[in-house]
Amino acid sequence: MDKRIKRALLTAAPALCTACSPALKDASERPNIIFFLIDDFGWTDSQVAYGEEVYPYNLRYDTPNMLRLAGKGAIMTNAYACSLSSPTRTALMTGMNSAHERITTYGALVRDTPTDAAGGTTGIINDNLDDPFARSDWNWNGLNPGDTLIDHSLQATPLARLLKDSGYFTIHVGKAHWAPAGTPGASPYNMGFTVNVAGSNAGYPRSYLSEENYGNTKELWQGNAVMNLTEYYGGDVHLTEALTREALKTLDYPIAHKEPFYLYMSHYGTHTPIQPDKRFYQKYRDRGMDDGQAKYASMCEGIDKSLGDIMDYLEKKGVADNTVIIFYADNGGHSIDTRKGGIAHTQCLPLREGKASVYEGGIREPLLVYWPGKTVGGTRLNTPVGPEDFFPTILDIAGVEDYETIQKVDGQSFANLLSKGSEYVAEQIGTVEGGASQKEANRFVIPENVSGLDPLRPIVSHMPHQWRIEDQPDIDFMDAVRVGKWKLIYRMHNVLEMKGKGLEEAIRNSVFELYDLEEDISESKDLAPAMPEKAGELARILGERLRSWNAAMPVIRSEGRTVPYPDELL
Amino acid sequence: MDKRIKRALLTAAPALCTACSPALKDASERPNIIFFLIDDFGWTDSQVAYGEEVYPYNLRYDTPNMLRLAGKGAIMTNAYACSLSSPTRTALMTGMNSAHERITTYGALVRDTPTDAAGGTTGIINDNLDDPFARSDWNWNGLNPGDTLIDHSLQATPLARLLKDSGYFTIHVGKAHWAPAGTPGASPYNMGFTVNVAGSNAGYPRSYLSEENYGNTKELWQGNAVMNLTEYYGGDVHLTEALTREALKTLDYPIAHKEPFYLYMSHYGTHTPIQPDKRFYQKYRDRGMDDGQAKYASMCEGIDKSLGDIMDYLEKKGVADNTVIIFYADNGGHSIDTRKGGIAHTQCLPLREGKASVYEGGIREPLLVYWPGKTVGGTRLNTPVGPEDFFPTILDIAGVEDYETIQKVDGQSFANLLSKGSEYVAEQIGTVEGGASQKEANRFVIPENVSGLDPLRPIVSHMPHQWRIEDQPDIDFMDAVRVGKWKLIYRMHNVLEMKGKGLEEAIRNSVFELYDLEEDISESKDLAPAMPEKAGELARILGERLRSWNAAMPVIRSEGRTVPYPDELL
Repeated sequence: MDKRIKRALLTAAPALCTACSPALKDASERPNIIFFLIDDFGWTDSQVAYGEEVYPYNLRYDTPNMLRLAGKGAIMTNAYACSLSSPTRTALMTGMNSAHERITTYGALVRDTPTDAAGGTTGIINDNLDDPFARSDWNWNGLNPGDTLIDHSLQATPLARLLKDSGYFTIHVGKAHWAPAGTPGASPYNMGFTVNVAGSNAGYPRSYLSEENYGNTKELWQGNAVMNLTEYYGGDVHLTEALTREALKTLDYPIAHKEPFYLYMSHYGTHTPIQPDKRFYQKYRDRGMDDGQAKYASMCEGIDKSLGDIMDYLEKKGVADNTVIIFYADNGGHSIDTRKGGIAHTQCLPLREGKASVYEGGIREPLLVYWPGKTVGGTRLNTPVGPEDFFPTILDIAGVEDYETIQKVDGQSFANLLSKGSEYVAEQIGTVEGGASQKEANRFVIPENVSGLDPLRPIVSHMPHQWRIEDQPDIDFMDAVRVGKWKLIYRMHNVLEMKGKGLEEAIRNSVFELYDLEEDISESKDLAPAMPEKAGELARILGERLRSWNAAMPVIRSEGRTVPYPDELL
Repeated sequence: MDKRIKRALLTAAPALCTACSPALKDASERPNIIFFLIDDFGWTDSQVAYGEEVYPYNLRYDTPNMLRLAGKGAIMTNAYACSLSSPTRTALMTGMNSAHERITTYGALVRDTPTDAAGGTTGIINDNLDDPFARSDWNWNGLNPGDTLIDHSLQATPLARLLKDSGYFTIHVGKAHWAPAGTPGASPYNMGFTVNVAGSNAGYPRSYLSEENYGNTKELWQGNAVMNLTEYYGGDVHLTEALTREALKTLDYPIAHKEPFYLYMSHYGTHTPIQPDKRFYQKYRDRGMDDGQAKYASMCEGIDKSLGDIMDYLEKKGVADNTVIIFYADNGGHSIDTRKGGIAHTQCLPLREGKASVYEGGIREPLLVYWPGKTVGGTRLNTPVGPEDFFPTILDIAGVEDYETIQKVDGQSFANLLSKGSEYVAEQIGTVEGGASQKEANRFVIPENVSGLDPLRPIVSHMPHQWRIEDQPDIDFMDAVRVGKWKLIYRMHNVLEMKGKGLEEAIRNSVFELYDLEEDISESKDLAPAMPEKAGELARILGERLRSWNAAMPVIRSEGRTVPYPDELL
């Protein structure tokens, strides 16, 4: 292991709150917040090693600024997202579990167009009548922040609106993707953002290249051309860089007016298309990567550069000490796209599968939080958190209280985990060199009376869809729940194989799989046959959660009824 | 004449400053400013009659909200713009005469692409080698607010930047069109706007219809699709309405934070394409208009509705008494586009010609200014003003002093004309019914010691280009200067007919034309043969101005030299 990396990860000197000046504390009551979100960026796509060891995969791409941030803030070792973009992005805005939102796969460009491949009577595209399942009754018109009811949409009070109403200068830069065109949710302004650059209904950029005008070219328009960046057309500026420059411009006003800002820096990168960031491409070819790998690597380093440029800018402007940075990704790395080079289903190793799957490769995420004066640099926090937890956490950090929402928020704030938890970890196992190993630190449990969060809180993932036209056996129609180190997978298709009911029959048909994530991060050894009781316990927890949210399930075509919640099989 | 209109125009009760509360005066030190700009909207396209009488043309379209604004503010009866969009829009941002800017015709979508039809060695498109003139050395890369030098661009400090730096919350909504793609001037953010909706390099919208996604359709992309409005796609919202709704949203932040705002509400309407605002179309068909006329009429009324909605919103939010509204158009109405219906060259009657021409139809503009507590409602101010005058005027109104600019500003503030001049007019000729007639009011001269502006200040128009591929004899290669009631036209092509020099030879070849605008608003009687001395006097004034600005002139192909400034012919 590279000593420099290890030091950055584990040895940052504690900046305990006893060292904070009262002035900083006062100013911190309304800190600026930057939510730095990446797309399709895998858990092992950075030099920050979230796992129990530094895997070779952590050393593929140079990400010095992610290391820099990890040295300043907390490293969340069990952070989750949904397995796809829109569910995570809407959960961030609503504080709801995506199963509760009924926004459980990616949104379309255009209204009234379900994107999932198993079709029912409402399906317009991608209907697959050969599939035994018909489409679930999900909200394919996405998140609706407006007053008008829209069929198959979720009406909710968005996070940005609450922040704006509380006085924050709210800025959206990059990818939005909460709702299709023709609905209010397509516009960041309706979500409560005062400034918007490049955000719309689009879920990916038609092009990352200014040489191609970011997709605004004189060919067939495909709805994913990136807006607001005409000044770079015909130039030589990668989209990641252009969005970064635009983001820094937007900070002029709040900094000059000493008003707190919330910057949702939502990069289109590193989603497909895989197009090189020329500043970094050749280096990776020289290291022996194939063309696709080197292109993807260059995009990752471009994102890292963006993070670093923003951190530099905050320091230059004198606001770094009052600016929280949250670094997160919206779902796991893409593991079946050939444009990334390499070998399919290996992209997220050691995690199994990738984007769209509820195996760890699809949902386990990098998460760093730097909260000046609160987080202790380089501490590792193992309490699991999910996408719905950011909503109350960010409002906590912003000091917004007594807010009202249309929706019932499912998430819990992890603000105390970040402050008290981080301090507790620093005290108990230290962060200096020679302290706890990465493995020990990752297994160190932070008690609920410190963090305010039950370490055994279930993390639920719900994917009641066929993702693509081609069947993806380890992706389509699967749910998961994690409780502590245990994880249950629910394979809905296999329910059709069951002859009768009962836990044993379900396990015999691989309806349930059980994994021990501490011993088997790759989910390779199904323990359900050996530990049916544990599997049943998690199936009950998962079923109760889904039922309480009235989660949408696919319809079994031959029977005209929905797939049962997992506890109904017991 | 409709009494209601006359009353609205002339009879609003004076709201003299003696009646203002001290509280309002204090608040007015940093008033909000809305610059409401329309595109290709003619001088007689509204019920507000700027001329000496109410022409039948003033009664074509219902514009109750323009009347409402005229009742509150001052009616500027001799306001001018450049004859084309980009020159006016850049002059608004720089305070320079467009001849001085060398931005003298409309800008292209794409960098390094001169749009004028007479081609020289640098021409890429539209070169017309049969024309005796080759392209002048103008700034076809437009206004450049950046630090990097760009060939054929004007580097200048933009108005919005100064307002932003002085504390204003600056908002851009609609059409920008200062510079082509691939240059910093394509982005409102670089001009100093904190918020931008829909502004870019585009000079017109590919479509006004949400049914056509404002041009973002799956056909060949043409670069003029309107950005940032995906929420309306597939709906039933005319672009004018969509931009109005978006503009009102942008006011949330500054109003809530009690910070002054500058809203540049720059409608794409009523530029081509002529596409109906369905809310108003049928009414005009029922009045006997042809399809094109009714479509255009509906677009005009849509703009009026936008103005009214904004005024209503300001009142609802309690900021109307501290918000200046400037209502203006960027050039004359289009008089040769068949999509507007009617008969070509008659659209701007009684004015001669229209858009692109330096005859009055191309450059004379509607201008209303409501400055609460300062302007006296319904007063008519006849001191001529040009597009370069808004820069110092707006900074005056905003209370911005001691600013620095890269450029030398040509314009003069008419803030005193609006306040003291308006008060003086109200006192001297009244605004009550039975006071001065429209004609008397229009001829009432406001002395320089009241307004700070010489009533005989020359207004210079410079159009050294061929506008389109087809020759336009009353548009291409013409200059003009107005001094008091006198106006000189300089026809550059006719210089080629001259045998030798001298004023008489020039007049004999119709190089110069002279008009008395008080007696002949239609510029139908050329007085140059009868009054050569007056023509020579104005030619000297025009020549001196152009020379002082180093104005670009076309190149006479056969001689390899530029067309002389007009006074060189004397």
